[in-house]
This record gives sequence, structure tokens and C-alpha cells, in this order.
Amino acid sequence: MKALVYNAVNSVSLQDRPVPAISSPTDVIVKITKTTICGTDLHIKKGDVATCEPGRILGHEGVGIVQSVGSSVIRFKEGDRVLISCISSCATCEYCRRGMQSHCTSGGWILGNTIDGTQAEFVRIPHADSSLYPIPKGADESALVMLSDIFPTGLECGVLNGKVQPGGTVVVVGSGPVGLASIVTAQMYSPAKIIAIDTDARRLEVAKELGASETIDSTKEDPIAKVKALTDGKGCDSVIEAVGIPATFSLCQELLAPGGVLANVGVHGTKVDLHLENLWDKNISITTRLVDAVSTPMLLKMVEAGKLQPSQMITHRFKFSEMEKAYETFGKASEHGALKVVIEVD
Amino acid sequence: MKALVYNAVNSVSLQDRPVPAISSPTDVIVKITKTTICGTDLHIKKGDVATCEPGRILGHEGVGIVQSVGSSVIRFKEGDRVLISCISSCATCEYCRRGMQSHCTSGGWILGNTIDGTQAEFVRIPHADSSLYPIPKGADESALVMLSDIFPTGLECGVLNGKVQPGGTVVVVGSGPVGLASIVTAQMYSPAKIIAIDTDARRLEVAKELGASETIDSTKEDPIAKVKALTDGKGCDSVIEAVGIPATFSLCQELLAPGGVLANVGVHGTKVDLHLENLWDKNISITTRLVDAVSTPMLLKMVEAGKLQPSQMITHRFKFSEMEKAYETFGKASEHGALKVVIEVD
Amino acid sequence: MKALVYNAVNSVSLQDRPVPAISSPTDVIVKITKTTICGTDLHIKKGDVATCEPGRILGHEGVGIVQSVGSSVIRFKEGDRVLISCISSCATCEYCRRGMQSHCTSGGWILGNTIDGTQAEFVRIPHADSSLYPIPKGADESALVMLSDIFPTGLECGVLNGKVQPGGTVVVVGSGPVGLASIVTAQMYSPAKIIAIDTDARRLEVAKELGASETIDSTKEDPIAKVKALTDGKGCDSVIEAVGIPATFSLCQELLAPGGVLANVGVHGTKVDLHLENLWDKNISITTRLVDAVSTPMLLKMVEAGKLQPSQMITHRFKFSEMEKAYETFGKASEHGALKVVIEVD
Amino acid sequence: MKALVYNAVNSVSLQDRPVPAISSPTDVIVKITKTTICGTDLHIKKGDVATCEPGRILGHEGVGIVQSVGSSVIRFKEGDRVLISCISSCATCEYCRRGMQSHCTSGGWILGNTIDGTQAEFVRIPHADSSLYPIPKGADESALVMLSDIFPTGLECGVLNGKVQPGGTVVVVGSGPVGLASIVTAQMYSPAKIIAIDTDARRLEVAKELGASETIDSTKEDPIAKVKALTDGKGCDSVIEAVGIPATFSLCQELLAPGGVLANVGVHGTKVDLHLENLWDKNISITTRLVDAVSTPMLLKMVEAGKLQPSQMITHRFKFSEMEKAYETFGKASEHGALKVVIEVD
Repeated sequence: MKALVYNAVNSVSLQDRPVPAISSPTDVIVKITKTTICGTDLHIKKGDVATCEPGRILGHEGVGIVQSVGSSVIRFKEGDRVLISCISSCATCEYCRRGMQSHCTSGGWILGNTIDGTQAEFVRIPHADSSLYPIPKGADESALVMLSDIFPTGLECGVLNGKVQPGGTVVVVGSGPVGLASIVTAQMYSPAKIIAIDTDARRLEVAKELGASETIDSTKEDPIAKVKALTDGKGCDSVIEAVGIPATFSLCQELLAPGGVLANVGVHGTKVDLHLENLWDKNISITTRLVDAVSTPMLLKMVEAGKLQPSQMITHRFKFSEMEKAYETFGKASEHGALKVVIEVD
Repeated sequence: MKALVYNAVNSVSLQDRPVPAISSPTDVIVKITKTTICGTDLHIKKGDVATCEPGRILGHEGVGIVQSVGSSVIRFKEGDRVLISCISSCATCEYCRRGMQSHCTSGGWILGNTIDGTQAEFVRIPHADSSLYPIPKGADESALVMLSDIFPTGLECGVLNGKVQPGGTVVVVGSGPVGLASIVTAQMYSPAKIIAIDTDARRLEVAKELGASETIDSTKEDPIAKVKALTDGKGCDSVIEAVGIPATFSLCQELLAPGGVLANVGVHGTKVDLHLENLWDKNISITTRLVDAVSTPMLLKMVEAGKLQPSQMITHRFKFSEMEKAYETFGKASEHGALKVVIEVD
Repeated sequence: MKALVYNAVNSVSLQDRPVPAISSPTDVIVKITKTTICGTDLHIKKGDVATCEPGRILGHEGVGIVQSVGSSVIRFKEGDRVLISCISSCATCEYCRRGMQSHCTSGGWILGNTIDGTQAEFVRIPHADSSLYPIPKGADESALVMLSDIFPTGLECGVLNGKVQPGGTVVVVGSGPVGLASIVTAQMYSPAKIIAIDTDARRLEVAKELGASETIDSTKEDPIAKVKALTDGKGCDSVIEAVGIPATFSLCQELLAPGGVLANVGVHGTKVDLHLENLWDKNISITTRLVDAVSTPMLLKMVEAGKLQPSQMITHRFKFSEMEKAYETFGKASEHGALKVVIEVD
Repeated sequence: MKALVYNAVNSVSLQDRPVPAISSPTDVIVKITKTTICGTDLHIKKGDVATCEPGRILGHEGVGIVQSVGSSVIRFKEGDRVLISCISSCATCEYCRRGMQSHCTSGGWILGNTIDGTQAEFVRIPHADSSLYPIPKGADESALVMLSDIFPTGLECGVLNGKVQPGGTVVVVGSGPVGLASIVTAQMYSPAKIIAIDTDARRLEVAKELGASETIDSTKEDPIAKVKALTDGKGCDSVIEAVGIPATFSLCQELLAPGGVLANVGVHGTKVDLHLENLWDKNISITTRLVDAVSTPMLLKMVEAGKLQPSQMITHRFKFSEMEKAYETFGKASEHGALKVVIEVD
């Protein structure tokens, strides 16, 4: 089969690989029909992710058709159309029982990281009963690719950790795909205001289309002053950090209302300053989370009910043979106005 | 009347002051029978608390007898024995409605800070209906002085924010009065282990007597290695910071299990390092809080039921005329083995 | 002034009454600008409410202008435009502290019940600081009349008690004003389905317009079979009883999915059968509640943000001089297609 | 092997049966070392449980040693000492994901009901990874038999559903084994008062020994009057029904404070009266639950930490060859003063 392989720092390419086989009774082999590329894949390509070694087939998102099932799999059979979760979960270890599937002792984020992933014609999914989801009939499968990672991430790490609620005020710092997924899913909890902050005017336009009630281009306006002006001087109840650098984390601390939550979504590479001299008596929380993908069943119901349209995030489509071009386009997302790309695998 | 007044940096003294009078219909004048000194009073004395100006009568803890009541007070009458909360609350502003009485727009921590306090023969308590508590008959009133501040603080900022729960593991960094109050109140939620860390062997002995299952003298043992050894290498579910300096906050981050909470209780004067490069994917929370004293009614019930013995914290007793000596003793707490001092006002 | 008085069973009339005066420092006198009639007022008229004696001015809903304030009132001043809550709350008793303002030991539902109410030119509001809300500038005051009672009731007793959540299934039995308020406010929590059941085709049309995804006329279809068909045979996660008779409570038990909540909103006059032989092992909850009106500040923010349109509930408008006619119309709501009537007081 | 078999109504006997074999990759065969008899087993014997057919090996509680493991089992290996949960859980169906393992679509309470159970020398445990628990070294295995069913039941259905909390008041109606397990586990949440009501003086003595602060013999005292006297006239915050008949359920409604929870634990065979005409405005909840055994890991930690002593419940011990006598003794529990019996299987 063809597969997109991480060769070395700054090098990925389509290669021939053997079709994976079932190696444990809980495995399922999925024939991929659609996949996508994540910002994390770009980080791997740059050499930033030490756990992912050269030779690895990348990808942790996608939908497909069950090709074969291990002997203990009870929820899936050959021919079923399935959504693949970015998180593999044994469902029985201490962390899975606590709803921390991201820390599963024999799973977590392993696809396209420590085992071969979904940017291939076939993929082996371990712990399939708890790591795959049946696709409702008639669903828009391109849209569902957004439910492998980006929507659960925006929702769980941003919106749920951020305790977004009716009447509340929300600010999302960073309007990349995950920040936008937070903006979209925040609306399920009916906050009074959703403010988007970014440095890219085009992304802010998209944020507005997707439901932000206000946008702030921080290259043109002082985001702290504007957020305070929009919130009676208080700051926001839910501050979602969707960038991952010290400057934005610092900004988030300034945007936080007393009693608020700073929900960190961004991937950070260095320590940051925490201004406890200001925050120690402000009754605030700061949260971190690697997506656990426990919200996937609910998100599927919301899509099926027509109440979420994840396809709004899709800006580009490629054939699997154009995978390298897809990486180039997504790698220069800003230049191409790219949010999420969908790759069709025949 | 006599009152303990903050004169200037490093100077407090007993002085003659006029007895306070009711100035609002919601006021109550309380004749103080017992009061105490808080670590915060020492900070004021050192000049660390900008909001508290020279000439202020100090003190935000105490019990006493209602002397007179304003015209709109409905819950108290002359002669009632009352517990004074360190937090004054209007009960009706946005923050009070949200359980954030510490941020009350016309209250909060004002006693002995921006208005005259309880280290006096009489004190004026604003918003009395929501800032005083009736003392059950036959109660040990010395013990109840611990419920003005230190017990709600240890409980709310440490134990409740720290989500201490049955079977969980707790570490409390700092065994001063508030850290000890966290150790005592944590036991209401039945954690499997409570580990106390300090640098003072005597305080650790007290921690053990008050219910710590393990103690670590960090001048003699590596606290990180020992906590890991006691928790199957995971760290603790609840990490309570009860010191307030960058070194202990840093230690706390190292003691935190995946999915855990770092509940900050300490008062911090400078920024600290937050190691998001390690914590961004650990599903942790960090919380801050100024005590809201919303747990006072519950704590009173626990004391009344004989299930909490706050008097365990009292090491010294003084007459009100010895107030200056009480400050000296409490100011050199370590030298005197002092935890909390009770001052009797006749 | 003119006031609508409950004279005797089946008799109410507009009468001359003295303008109320401030009798406690926490009182405010409000000049009513708009009021409405509640189903409860009709119950009083029929003699069903023992606590309400003849001679009482009725009404517990309305908006108006502050005419005068008691000496301890801090949040309001003469001329402020205010929303009156159906629940008067001292904010300081045990129940108010627990969020059970409906059980306030010196308040609760007293307006138009045990003290004179809002269907008058002026009304005395006790505990004004915690029982009135400032009206945002430019608000549609007719719409806000719906926030005195019906919206908090539908939300708190139905939606919040019913734990409505994203992706969940909801059925509301009864499409009267309160049932409709549940249908409207449920949408703040993004359930996948909201099913309305009633016996009146016109009300079901309104339910559909206000956001029900499905409607069932139980005179024409078997509601149990249809709800099961719409929910994969499971029943609903949230079952809201908004009628108050044994037959509908019985129906609700049949509509409940394992793990679901039956949130009772209806006022019941007799005992009902509870089929514990079927429910004991179904992991369900049944809840009751008298509205506490703790959600009013949030509802005000939602209306201000343009995310709720309570005026959808208003079908008729009357002048205060037509009050008796308003009672007649509302008393035959079905015949007149009436939901809520707004009465303008000049 | 020997096994205790349900032959027909009112007949159980020890019989020879083939040793069970692994039939699915997720199975484990456990050699039983200790088991016990549940009240439910007596119900089966009386013919009350339609799902359990003659010929069934009874028992859903026990500890033992892993004899063999299916090919997909990852958490257990031959020789491991294990605790068997009364609830078998696939961990991946909709209900298991929601923490409702009792409703597992391929599990739930099946042991000794719809598949052969633990009152035998060997038992086959399906979905072993999520239905067995490793026994900590040095544990008192007799005590752990109480964690198969009775402790999770008393805790989950009674204490957790009943929202027992520090300072609260609890009444437990029925001091049989499950009621006593509620009394013991309630103490993990530090209520101010635990009141036990029963008609058997001996059981009330045990209730007192196990932590009840007050006991009421309802054959000698009016339980409603006494509970009201003990709770300032309010009734209890948490009312735990651990009998399962209309009279006790009716009593529980009378004991409930405004804002309280009636947590039903008893197995009910008929409908009951629900007095909504009294309760509709009392802000109460009524809950039902079949034990999900999700608390087992926590209970194991509490036992390991020495903070729970489940062996307090064991009154009688038998050899497996005396199984029929054990049934007789437990069947006349009151006469023999029996709470739980432990059966040793060599």
C-alpha cells in the first residue's frame, strides 16, 4: 500500500509499505477513505516530537471502512464505516476509567507517533472497541474527519476545561484550526460573548463567520484594553489559549476575570511566567489537557442532529497521491488560507 | 476602648480609641471576647500590605457578644454570641451571588485592613447578617476563633480547590497554621494519604499529630523522590501550596500526578515559573483563591457535632493587655513553637 | 391607587387601595409599568391556594421604576428601572445561602400570596437588594416580564434539574407557558432532540416555532411509542413534566431512558403512583423544585446578548384598566390562543 | 467441580458440574477462594428473579486466583489474586462509557443470574479486564469479599446518590447488610449525623458500633418525630431507603428535608405512593440505581490505607462443603444474628 512516511527532519514522502495485519485480538484493520493533516504532523516533520522516529507512517485522524477484526472485537465487523479517534484507549486502565484516555497506559496518542498512523491506505487500530466509532448512515464523512482530533480538542481542552456557560464571556487567543474549533463548540454552551484574538485578519474573518461575536486583530488594537472594554472592565470568564507560546500565555493572564478559568490548549515548548503576585487572590484556575476524546460520542450526535457543521473548517481537498502537496499547502497555511485539508483515499 | 493599632512599619501598639458606632442599618457592634493574630497581621506590620494604612486597628478574627444592631439586621440581636468572619459580604452583589464573597464589591477582606478590625474591645461589623454567625450553645469559643479565617482558608483554598477525595493522595507543602488547617480539614474527605512537607521538625511532628500519614523534612530528604516513592511514582492527586514563594511553588509542580490539582493557598509577592513544557499535556489544574468563608456554616456544624477540634491549633493564650507580647511571640512563631495564639478580651 | 384584588373564590376585581409605604430599611417601592398574569393567579382565584387570603392584591411578576428606597438599600435608587423577581430573598438565611431562595425563611414566594403583589400601580418589594434586578438600557421591557417567573421556572425546574446537555434527548410534557419556557431555555444547552407532547394542536405549533424538533399530539398518536421510535427505543435523557396531574406524571415515567432525569415542574394536588418496581434499577432521578430565581442574572445577560427572545411568549396586551378582561382572556387561554398577556400600567 | 445450584423454587444444592472453560478472548477463569451469599441469592431461591433459571450456579461475589486467561486479556495473568465484581462490564458500550456499568449491553449483573456464578470452585468471568481487580499484597481477602457487591452498593446507591457531605444529616432506613454498608461508607464524607432506623434491636446495636450517631427502633419510637427532633424540625439532607417496601419508602418521604435527596437502595416489587402534593415545591430529588461498581478501585484504596474495615460485616464463616447450611443460616439472618457470611473454598 501507499503511505506517507516521516523520513527525517523536514522530509516526508509517499512510500510503499506492507498492508498492516491484526496482531492482537482487540485490533481492527481499517481501509482509510479520508484523512487529514494536523499541526502536530508538521511538528513531527520539523523534528519537534521526540517520541516519533523516522520511518513512521504519520496521521492520527481519518474515517474508513473496517477491513478485518480481531477475535475479541465485539462492536465492529467487516464493512462497517468508522471514525478513527486520535486517542487509542484500552478502556480499563486507571486513567481510562477516570476519563483520562490520553494517559491510557497502553494507548493515548500513539497513532502516527509511536505506531503507524492513518495517512495510508490501511491502518491497524489497537483497542478498536474503544477507539473507533460507528458512522451514522448518510453522514458527511469529510465533516467527520474533523471529529478525530480537532473538534474534541477544541471542546475538551478549551470549552469544557474553560467552563463555558450560558451568559458567560469567552475569549479565544489564536484562530488556527483548534482555536476555531473552540469557537464553534463553545456555542453549544451559549455564552453571551465569544471574542477572537489573532494577528491574521483572514483568520479573524473566519472566526466571525464561525460565530465569534467580536474579533480583535492584536497587530492593530490593544487586546487587553479592548477585552476589558467589552466586559465592563472585568475580563473574560473563560480564556482559551490556543497558540502555545509565552507571549500568548502571558496575554491570557491579563484577560482573565476574577473567578475565571484559563484553559490552555496550546502545545508549549518552554516554561512561562505565571504572575501569582497578581493572581493568588483572584479565585482563578489554569487548566491543561491532552485531548481524551471522551466527547466524541456526543459530537457525533450533534453532527447527526444537524447542530454542528464541522465541514466549515475544510478549505482544501486533495487526492491521496497528492499527499506531499497537501503537506506543502497545510505547511504554509496562512499563505494559502488553509484551515483543514481533507485527503481522499480511493 | 483599648485597641491594637498599626502605627507605622514595624510598629504596633495598644492605644485608646473611641468605641465604634453603628453607621449603616446593616451594621452590628460586637464586644470582642476572644481574638487572635494572623500571619497577615504580621505582613501588615512589616509594611507589605499597601491597602492597610497607619492608624488602622488590626485583626479580622474573633468571637464576641452583640452590643447593638442596625435597623435592618434581622438575624442578630443584642446579647447574641457571634463568630466574626474575616470576610464581610453584602450577599447581593454579583460576586457574593457566585460564592466569591472575597470579591464582594462592598466587602471582602476589609476588617483590620481598610476598616478597623477585631483586635479591640469593640468592632463594627458591616453587612452583619451575612458576615456573622450565631455560636451554638456550649461551644468552645476559643476553638471557634479558628473558624474566622484559618479553617475556612485551609479548607476552601486548599482542600476544596484541591478536590481532595476518598482514596486520593494529598501533599501539603508548608506546615504553618494554614497548612495544618488543610491537613485537618482534608480528613473530612477521607484521602488515602496525607503527606506533609516542611523544613521544621517540630511543625512536622504537629502535622503528624493532626493527621498527616507521612511527613517529609525537606532539609533531610528529597521531597520529590519520597513523594514519588509513596505514590507508585505518580505524584499526588492534590498538591496544596501553603508557603507562597517561588521555590515551594516550583516543588509543587514536581509533586503533581497526571490529572491532579495544585491548589495554591500561599500569598505570593513575585511571579513564578510555570513549567508548561512539562505540564501542558498532563491534564492538571492550578487554582488560586482568597478565602470566601462560604464554608463557615458547615464548619460550625462539624465542630458542634464533635467531628472537628480546631482547638488543637492553639498553643498560646494571652490577655488583651498583653497584646504586644502576643505579637512578639507569634512573630517568632518557630522559636516559641507557636501555631495560633488566643487573646482573651474581658 | 388601583389594584387587582382577590375578593373571594372566583372573584377578582380592580379596586382602590392606598399606595404602599416603606416598612423596613430593606424595602423598595416600585411603580409598576408592566405586569402579567400567571397560571398560579388563576389557581388563587379558584380558591386552590390556602396561603392567599381574600383582600390580597395579586401578582408576582412585573417591571417598573423605583419610587423610593429603604435606608439600607445599596443597589437601587429612585428612578432605576427594575425587574421584579417572583421570589423575595433575604440572601442570608440558610436556604438563601444554599441557592434555595424559594425557601427563604423571610421570603420565598410571598408577592401576591402572603403580601400584596404586582398587579397594582405600586408595590412594596421586601429584601429589595436581592429581589430586584436592574434593567439594561434599551431592553424590551415587555420581554423582561417573562423573566419574573416563567423563564426561571422553565429553566431551573425543568432544564437545569433535568440536566439537559449537548447531544441529549429531551421531552417536555405540556406546552403551556412554562413548558414552552422549558423548550426555549433548553436550547441554551444544545440537546440533539426536543420533543413536545400536548393535546392542543395549536400549542404544539407554537412549540415547534419555539424550537421543538418534534411534536406529538397525544390525542392522535401514542406518545410512548413515538418517543421510543425517536430515541432508538431508549426514551429520553431529560423528561420535563409541565402539567401537574397523575396521568402526565405516569406518562413521564414511561418516557424516561435509563440514567435519565424526570424533572417535575407541574404543581400537583394529589399523590401519584411511582413505579419503583420498574424504576428501582434504572439509575434515574426524579426532581422537584419551586423556582429559586437564581438564574435571573444569567437570563438577563442572555436577553441582553440577543440570544433569548422571551417576547415570543406574548400573545395579548391589555391596559391596566382592562385587568379584569385580561383575567377572562387568560382564564380561557386555549379558546383565545393565549400564552402570556402583558398588561401596561401607565 | 462442586457448585451451588438453583434447582427450583425453594431448592438449592451443592452439585457436580464441569469446570468452566474460556469461551471468549476476554474471559478469565478464576479459582474461587472465598465467596459469600447475598440477599439477592435468597430472592432467586424464592423464585422472585425471573431472569435466573433453574440449573444456574448462583453467586456474584468472591475472591480467587486466576487460573487461565483469554488471549486479549492484558491486565491479568495466571496466579494473580483477584477480586470479582458483581457487575461485568465491557467498558466500551454507551452505558459503560457513561459510568452505568450496571446497564452494560453485554454485561451488567449477569453472574449467578444469566450465567453461572461464583458459588463454585471455578467461575468464568467475561470482560475480565474491566470486571476483576488485582488484590493488593497482604490484604485481608475475607474483607475484600464485601467489596464485590455490598460496599459499592451501599456507597453508590446510598451515599453517593444521597449526596452525603460534611456537616450534613443522614438517615438510613433499614440496617441490613446494605444499609450498614451505607452507614460505614457514609462516614468517608463526614456527615454531622447518621441516624439508623430499623425494627431489630440487635441490628441497631451493630449500626451504632459501625458509626451511626443515633438509632431509632421504629417498633418503640415514632421515627418521624424523633428524626425531626434530631434535625431542628427539618428532616435529613440524605435519606437512604435500604428495605424496598412501600411502607419504608413512604416513611422516607416524611424524613426528607427541603433540598434533600431520597436515595433508594431497596429492591421494590410493587409501585409505591409518591406524595407530590407535599413534595412538588420542596426542591428534593429521588434517585434509583443498580450498583455500577465504579467505586471499587477507590474502595480498594481505602481498605489498603486502613481507612475502611469491611470485615466488621462478617458474622459467620463456613467451608464450601457447608454451603447449604450457610444458606440456611443467612436465610434466617435475624434469628442467627447474621450479617454477612464468608465461605472458604479450598
